[in-house]
Amino acid sequence: MNKGALALLVHGGAENWSPQRWKERFDEVCADRRVLLLPGASFDPAEVQYAAVWKPHPGELAGFPNLRVIFNLGAGVDALMVDRSLPDVPLVRVAVTDLTARMTEYVVLHVLMHHRQELYLRECQRAKRWAPKSQWAAGAISVGVMGLGTLGADAADALKRLGFRVAGWSRSEKNIAGVDCFHGDEQLDPFLRQTDILVCLLPLTQQTRHILDRALFAKLNRDSPLGAPVLINAGRGGLQNEADILQCLDDGTLGGASLDVYATEPLPPESRFWTHPKVVLTPHNAADTDPDEISKYVARQIERFETGGGLENIVDRGRGY
Amino acid sequence: MNKGALALLVHGGAENWSPQRWKERFDEVCADRRVLLLPGASFDPAEVQYAAVWKPHPGELAGFPNLRVIFNLGAGVDALMVDRSLPDVPLVRVAVTDLTARMTEYVVLHVLMHHRQELYLRECQRAKRWAPKSQWAAGAISVGVMGLGTLGADAADALKRLGFRVAGWSRSEKNIAGVDCFHGDEQLDPFLRQTDILVCLLPLTQQTRHILDRALFAKLNRDSPLGAPVLINAGRGGLQNEADILQCLDDGTLGGASLDVYATEPLPPESRFWTHPKVVLTPHNAADTDPDEISKYVARQIERFETGGGLENIVDRGRGY
Repeated sequence: MNKGALALLVHGGAENWSPQRWKERFDEVCADRRVLLLPGASFDPAEVQYAAVWKPHPGELAGFPNLRVIFNLGAGVDALMVDRSLPDVPLVRVAVTDLTARMTEYVVLHVLMHHRQELYLRECQRAKRWAPKSQWAAGAISVGVMGLGTLGADAADALKRLGFRVAGWSRSEKNIAGVDCFHGDEQLDPFLRQTDILVCLLPLTQQTRHILDRALFAKLNRDSPLGAPVLINAGRGGLQNEADILQCLDDGTLGGASLDVYATEPLPPESRFWTHPKVVLTPHNAADTDPDEISKYVARQIERFETGGGLENIVDRGRGY
Repeated sequence: MNKGALALLVHGGAENWSPQRWKERFDEVCADRRVLLLPGASFDPAEVQYAAVWKPHPGELAGFPNLRVIFNLGAGVDALMVDRSLPDVPLVRVAVTDLTARMTEYVVLHVLMHHRQELYLRECQRAKRWAPKSQWAAGAISVGVMGLGTLGADAADALKRLGFRVAGWSRSEKNIAGVDCFHGDEQLDPFLRQTDILVCLLPLTQQTRHILDRALFAKLNRDSPLGAPVLINAGRGGLQNEADILQCLDDGTLGGASLDVYATEPLPPESRFWTHPKVVLTPHNAADTDPDEISKYVARQIERFETGGGLENIVDRGRGY
């Protein structure tokens, strides 16, 4: 019997995510399985048993009658969740060490930038001003991580290593050594009240859309040693109310923000984020992932699936992540 | 018998290092010992048994005939080593967790800034340009730490946690888990050849003065994934040849530099470092230390000394650190 084919649907993504690069990687790791780069390849839809996708068009996956598993090539599956015709087969998200490590790099970098007064120090450099200000030790600063999945847990651990006080909040209860874990709606306010630097790594779902708004920012630690609390969002743009962020930066409710994601990407030139002196902006590159690592991960999952070992990191469609 | 007095000589230092603040802290931790803030206090030089100092004037310490121990209030003792009349009593440098942790914060922040293309990304933000570039994972980058004392060893360990390949070089042989340790003159070149980001935390001695020069930079990894290797100096300004750094940044021998220390401090307004687009400059604040922590450390050392436990972290005057 022929092995079922794998359809590759990659729309957009990072600079190094050319569909052709994905095709080459998958050809390498899938050995005797046919890899169909779509659109373009000629094939019989019935032969497709697996799909590896990034932002497929709604309805695109419904065209494969014998589909067995869908692999999402990134951590967030929110783009898939809006496809009402999404076939009812297991949906697997990538959880590769490489992606986790890159996100932790981003989080540690941006927490340290705000903690170590980088915006102020660059301003001093531009003005040729030698003017060190008092600097708190990391142990005086509470970082609060929203979302304690694979990414949040690793970032929390790395921040702990640097001496920060670290707390986390998640929908369901978690236990992470050395991290003060809060969960559920009831514990959100106490979590926020003690947070000086808020790091958001939540998945985007119906429940979390626009969760980062003025009401939430106003609950962060008003007596922060940093002067005013700081927001770092590397989750999804849909998590944030952008007008509220700008207003809160303007009126001092927030002292600074690092943003990697936006309601509209690429961020339109007219956005005030580009020029706001308290915003550190990156072009959704917090955790690019190497097609090498992801293609190997998908091949390993297919191997597990076909030999009865079971799939890992299956998305719970009820929760949406 | 009265306890010997402690003389406090603090010239310059960080913003929060006011002599009066030191006096208050030492009064608290020294309990029944007299603390003399100099100049100003009236006293008999013969009663001084301990001196806690930051950049004392040459000759100043020779005026105490019964001096038993000198405590340097920072990590670097180079300012003391030039005093030819320095009394021949044990010279102790501070080694407090707080200072170590702060230096590690600085090193991790600046390694990540260069690794994660911060200079490029800020330039893009200023130009309102959404243009992510390929980003290497930390595992593709070798960080080389020169100086593997308390500070270098801790920074190396934290960088390791983030996934960087970490090597270190020191005068004498060291062993640090997970860190590729080089030592001595003979192993300097092989250490440099594999280094993409060079972090300098060396003490300033006759041997290390101006060690950071063109000849050394030219030996760094010419095939660095970063394009060109990067220098981070948080040791002492005297370690660096500043004209060489600027020339090497201009001609591409170096791809970037983070500098916290300078030949002359405050850095003069005419220095090209202020405006060089590849320089990230901080005003010698990589590792400010809290007088609270240091005064407690000194009091503990005096207690050990008087009860026969022996002093820790005594400077080897032959080596100069």
